[in-house]
Amino acid sequence: VSLDPAAAGVLGTVRIVGTGLLGTSIALGLRSLGVEVVLSDPSPTALALARDVGAGQPDRGDRPVSLVVVGAPPDVTAQVVVTELAEHPEATVTDVASVKGGIAAAVRAAGGDVSRYVGGHPMAGRERSGPVAARADLFLGRPWVVCPSESAGPGDLPVDLSGGVPARVETVRRLATALGATPVLMAAQDHDEAVALISHVPQIAASLVAARLVKIGDPAVGLAGQGLRDVTRIADSDPALWAQILAANATPVRRALRDLRADLDAVIDALAALGEPADAAIGARAALARIVAEGRSGRERIPGKHGEPLTVYEVVTTLVPDRPGQLARLFDDIGEAGINVEEFALEHAPGQKVGLAGVSVLPAARAALEHALAERGWHVVA
Amino acid sequence: VSLDPAAAGVLGTVRIVGTGLLGTSIALGLRSLGVEVVLSDPSPTALALARDVGAGQPDRGDRPVSLVVVGAPPDVTAQVVVTELAEHPEATVTDVASVKGGIAAAVRAAGGDVSRYVGGHPMAGRERSGPVAARADLFLGRPWVVCPSESAGPGDLPVDLSGGVPARVETVRRLATALGATPVLMAAQDHDEAVALISHVPQIAASLVAARLVKIGDPAVGLAGQGLRDVTRIADSDPALWAQILAANATPVRRALRDLRADLDAVIDALAALGEPADAAIGARAALARIVAEGRSGRERIPGKHGEPLTVYEVVTTLVPDRPGQLARLFDDIGEAGINVEEFALEHAPGQKVGLAGVSVLPAARAALEHALAERGWHVVA
Repeated sequence: VSLDPAAAGVLGTVRIVGTGLLGTSIALGLRSLGVEVVLSDPSPTALALARDVGAGQPDRGDRPVSLVVVGAPPDVTAQVVVTELAEHPEATVTDVASVKGGIAAAVRAAGGDVSRYVGGHPMAGRERSGPVAARADLFLGRPWVVCPSESAGPGDLPVDLSGGVPARVETVRRLATALGATPVLMAAQDHDEAVALISHVPQIAASLVAARLVKIGDPAVGLAGQGLRDVTRIADSDPALWAQILAANATPVRRALRDLRADLDAVIDALAALGEPADAAIGARAALARIVAEGRSGRERIPGKHGEPLTVYEVVTTLVPDRPGQLARLFDDIGEAGINVEEFALEHAPGQKVGLAGVSVLPAARAALEHALAERGWHVVA
Repeated sequence: VSLDPAAAGVLGTVRIVGTGLLGTSIALGLRSLGVEVVLSDPSPTALALARDVGAGQPDRGDRPVSLVVVGAPPDVTAQVVVTELAEHPEATVTDVASVKGGIAAAVRAAGGDVSRYVGGHPMAGRERSGPVAARADLFLGRPWVVCPSESAGPGDLPVDLSGGVPARVETVRRLATALGATPVLMAAQDHDEAVALISHVPQIAASLVAARLVKIGDPAVGLAGQGLRDVTRIADSDPALWAQILAANATPVRRALRDLRADLDAVIDALAALGEPADAAIGARAALARIVAEGRSGRERIPGKHGEPLTVYEVVTTLVPDRPGQLARLFDDIGEAGINVEEFALEHAPGQKVGLAGVSVLPAARAALEHALAERGWHVVA
């Protein structure tokens, strides 16, 4: 996983419009590969900051650009794309907004030259925003969806690669590859439906579950375990930004939420039926089990690391004193035993000055790991 | 965190009814502390297995018991408690079921001596079940809710400890303490409302989100990131067991889910309004932002490690080659720098043979960690 100078070498001069986190990170990455980068932002402060962190020089309009990357906020991206298409009549124009169908439609409706617009969505980000938080390597190892704007409907893709990828699509793919990302070709509508299910619906679910805790008492919330923490982790999000993202993908998200509400209604009805005579209650338990079973089937669809099918790892849990150096000792011991850690999680029990470390390994390695840890004095608990 | 022989010393002979994972784990822990334990289970196989792993001898009824722990499945727990109260007229009887109000009510309705029944809920478990999966230290560092059955309503607790805790409640608290758990006194109804919000509603939400993925395409699910994985992790659960758990806590769960559905309806209505004239759309964006903001407020209620208020840690992310020994090297380097790791997560990007390690530290330690890692050749990315 690294930046790719070969892919960067053919990009020509790149104009970055919008020097926020994503735009500036792209600029930094390209600059580190020797690509000529010029910058533009309606905010003089943001522009100056991006220049100061080494992202390139403000665009004086004195040289032709071959690629424009629009890193504007989602609600103005389409308008900026249309302007850039008109002002740079030879250039390929791409963007980084997290919803794609509406932008392509708006560009088309405004009479923009859609043959030169190729939508993009690098699936990377961080908690902080703005040019100062930017990193040349923000996109390393992340998927970067590339949506040719001609393909408005589902099923248009994958493009038939036997005849080669259209040149402007290939340019955006090279941009992604240059920055160490994995380009993924998708139709805009397919992308939007996908992010509704894998990103927007989970966000709403996390927020709705977490919202139930606003009025909970201290003793009750003190019982919270890792399950609640996992489900609600992404609820710690920016409301204004998410209102914009959800609004931009309103139709696919609404459709998915209506399906979810139908299942939720079934759960609520089943719970209500449990007060009824025995027959109704038996059916109610079956309905509850069905929802949980469907969730398990859906969970199995999520690929594991490296994009391979999900492997069911085995978790070995051990106690770790809460002091510097203890995790180093743990991983030393695991490494000495020649065992590869697939996943790792550290959890702390309430009121206790000790952590529970969950080490996930391939099932075949479980016994060896338990043995190695016990032999080295670790307290393996599960 | 350890087993507590002093607390165990006063328990007398303990009878375990139901030698599944929890019952057998309790038996193993008590035996390791020198407590006399006798076992009972309707399944001769489960009973023999528990004896064989060292959990104690089958109860021949030839000695008086002072404490009975009922580890039966939730749907028969109340009935077993009633039987045990009758057959051991001096003993304190407790249980380990995950829902408490219904059991206390059923015991009372059946004419059981509720003055000797003290409900319990050790908040521990593992993926595997049965006596062979049992561990003496399963409860180390976990909360163990203790519900005196006299307190059926909310607000009865905390008990006024100035006059001391009732003796039978104290016995169950000592059981929890002996096994290294943290006893938490709560009224049964408060407990059930708490677990509805912190365990049962998150479980349903995770299942509902994961169920949306059953029909998703491979390219779409390939975009899944850590957010989706976190939200759906607990969806990988046993449908039959969860049907039983949810059914046993039907009223509090239904109430919480109806509140959740009202918020969900507001989201769906807001998304629908975005196709309307501009005024409606502005109100819709505000409604979406409100839901996300409420979720963030609720999320802030979840305590962090050690039961202290949630500290907002800073995350330093670094690339880790996917080979044995690399995590050891990472934690060696962190330990050498004298930095304490608060939380740790390992993530893998699709298609890439490298992991992203997120090291959470106190804000004050962030710069030192970044410096220490960079100095030692680590590729810090965020």
